[in-house]
Amino acid sequence: MKILITEQILQRFRAELTADSEHEWVFTHGLPAALKAAPGTQVLVGASAPAELIRACGDDLRLVQVTGAGLDKVDQSALPGKTLLANTFHHGRSIAEHVMMVSMMLLRHVPRASQELAQGQWRTVMTDPGVPFGGVLAGRTMGIVGFGEIGSQVAVLARALGMDVRAVRHSGKDAPGVDWMGTSAQLPELLRTSHIVVVTVPLSEDTRGLIGAEAFAAMRPDTILVNVARGAVVDEQALHDALAKGSIGGAAIDVWWRNPRDADAPPPSHLDFTGFDNVVLTPHQSGHTEETFRGRALDVVANVRALTSGAPLRNLISR
Amino acid sequence: MKILITEQILQRFRAELTADSEHEWVFTHGLPAALKAAPGTQVLVGASAPAELIRACGDDLRLVQVTGAGLDKVDQSALPGKTLLANTFHHGRSIAEHVMMVSMMLLRHVPRASQELAQGQWRTVMTDPGVPFGGVLAGRTMGIVGFGEIGSQVAVLARALGMDVRAVRHSGKDAPGVDWMGTSAQLPELLRTSHIVVVTVPLSEDTRGLIGAEAFAAMRPDTILVNVARGAVVDEQALHDALAKGSIGGAAIDVWWRNPRDADAPPPSHLDFTGFDNVVLTPHQSGHTEETFRGRALDVVANVRALTSGAPLRNLISR
Repeated sequence: MKILITEQILQRFRAELTADSEHEWVFTHGLPAALKAAPGTQVLVGASAPAELIRACGDDLRLVQVTGAGLDKVDQSALPGKTLLANTFHHGRSIAEHVMMVSMMLLRHVPRASQELAQGQWRTVMTDPGVPFGGVLAGRTMGIVGFGEIGSQVAVLARALGMDVRAVRHSGKDAPGVDWMGTSAQLPELLRTSHIVVVTVPLSEDTRGLIGAEAFAAMRPDTILVNVARGAVVDEQALHDALAKGSIGGAAIDVWWRNPRDADAPPPSHLDFTGFDNVVLTPHQSGHTEETFRGRALDVVANVRALTSGAPLRNLISR
Repeated sequence: MKILITEQILQRFRAELTADSEHEWVFTHGLPAALKAAPGTQVLVGASAPAELIRACGDDLRLVQVTGAGLDKVDQSALPGKTLLANTFHHGRSIAEHVMMVSMMLLRHVPRASQELAQGQWRTVMTDPGVPFGGVLAGRTMGIVGFGEIGSQVAVLARALGMDVRAVRHSGKDAPGVDWMGTSAQLPELLRTSHIVVVTVPLSEDTRGLIGAEAFAAMRPDTILVNVARGAVVDEQALHDALAKGSIGGAAIDVWWRNPRDADAPPPSHLDFTGFDNVVLTPHQSGHTEETFRGRALDVVANVRALTSGAPLRNLISR
C-alpha cells in the first residue's frame, strides 16, 4: 500500500512506521508537496485532510488516519463513502501531568519567586510578612470542566495526589474517582467550589466563550484557571480583566486565541498576558511528549496492519 | 506559663497559638528583642536557640520547641539537663509536591518554552524539528538520596504518579512503596539508573559535597537533579560544570550555597545559574506552604498543653 504522511512530527518515528517494509511510506511537508505525492495513496495520515488533498489521493483511498483527536480539519463531505476515518489519542496523561504541574506552580507562586530570584531579589514568607503562603494540592478541590480523554485523566491524577475531584459534563453521569459530578447547567456550582478550574471541553458553538465574565465572577478569589482545551473556550478579555483586577488567583494558558504562526503574531493573543506574575504561559505544548506521539505512531502502524489483515481498526469514526 | 515566640512566621498563627488564654504569649522579632523579653520564659519557641538566649530565659525554662526539623541552631550544651527539647515537621508533603512539580517543569522544558513565548517566540516540536520532546513522569525512575521525612513523602507521590521508585539510605533497609532500596555505598548505582535524582539528606561532614563531579559523571545525560536538602550537599562548581557542559538534563535548585541575607548577596551562589534555560531556581521555599506552618503551630500548641496536663510531648529529642 501507499501511505502518505503529511504530519511532520511523525518523521521522528520513521523507523517504527516503516518497520513493515512491504508498504510504500511517503513523507511530505506542506500541502503543495502532499498534493503532488498524493495520487495512488491508500492511507492518508495527517492532522488535516482538505477536500483537494482527499480528491488528489484518487479512488483507492481506503483510510484517512487523523494524527490527533480532532476531526475539525478533515473535510468529511469530500470523503468517498467507502473510505474509513480514524483518529488517535494518547495525549490525556501528558496533559493531565501538565495540569498538575501548572496548578502547583501557581499555588506556590513559582513564576513570581523565580523571576525575583533571577533578578537578585530574595523574598519569601520568612523574610517578608507581605508574601502569601504557598499551598499544597492535597486537600484542595480540582474542578474539571468536560470529562473526555483529558478530563478523566486529570481526575485520576488529582485523586492520586489527594485532591477532592469535582467535574461537570453534558450528561452529568457519575464516574469512578469523581467525588461530585454535575451537568453542564451546574457549571456555576463547580466554579464556586473549586480551587483549580481546568477547562477540557472541545470547542464548539456551545462552548465558545463558556468561561466568560459571569464564570470569573463565580470563582473564588484564589481560584486558578487552567486552559488546556482551545483558547476560545475562555473569553480572552474576561480572563485578562480577572487577572488585572486580581479577582482570581492565577491562570495557566496553554491554548491561545490567535494562530501563532500568523505573520503578525506572536503574541498569540490580542491582549498582553506577559505582564502578570501569576500566570504560566506555554505554547500549546501540554500534550507534546514523546509518549503522546509514539502512541499515535503505533496506532498508525496498527491500523495499516489491520487494513492488510482484515482485522478491526482502532478508533474508527462512524459517519 | 510564659511562652516566648522568636520565629516571625508564627505570628501569622497568633489566633491558633493564643487560643489557650491562660498563658502569656510573647512575640518578638530579632535576638535583641528576644533577649529583653526572655527572663521568666518557660517555653522558648524558635528556629534557633543560642546559648545567651537560653541563659536569659532563666531557671524556669521547661521546653525549647524548635519550629522545624533541624537542631543545628540550638546550642544544646547551654541547655539545663531538665529542659526538654522538641522539634516539628509537616514539611514533607509540601516539599514532595515541589519535587514532582520541578521534575515535570524540566521534563517539559517549561523554563525555556515560557521564556521564549514571553519574548514573542513560538517554538514547539510541531514547528521546529530541533525542539526535543517532553516526557511524562509515568514510567520514569525517581531516585531518592536519603529516606527521612522528605524522602519517604517523595516516594509516596512518585509511586502515586506511576514512577519506578529507587532510594538509598544509610541502613539500606527496605521500605514499602520503594521498588529498590540501596545503602549509601550504592549511590552510584542509583545515579546511573534514575531519570530524576532528588537529594534529601541532612547536611553533615559525611554529606557535604556528596553530589560532586564523580556523581555527575555517573548520571544519565537526561538526568534531572533536584536539591531540596541543603545547598552544600551538592558541589556548586560541579553542578555548574555539568550544566555548562550539558552532561545532565537540568537542575532544580531550592537550597543555596550562600546566605542570601548577606549584604553582598544575592545572588545566593558564588556562580551564576540564571543563564541556563534548563534550571528551576527558587528561594528555599519548597516547604513554605500554609499547611507546613499551620501544622507546626498546632504542634507548639499541643506541646504547651502537654506540659500543662502532664501528657507526653510530641517529637521530643532524647539527649
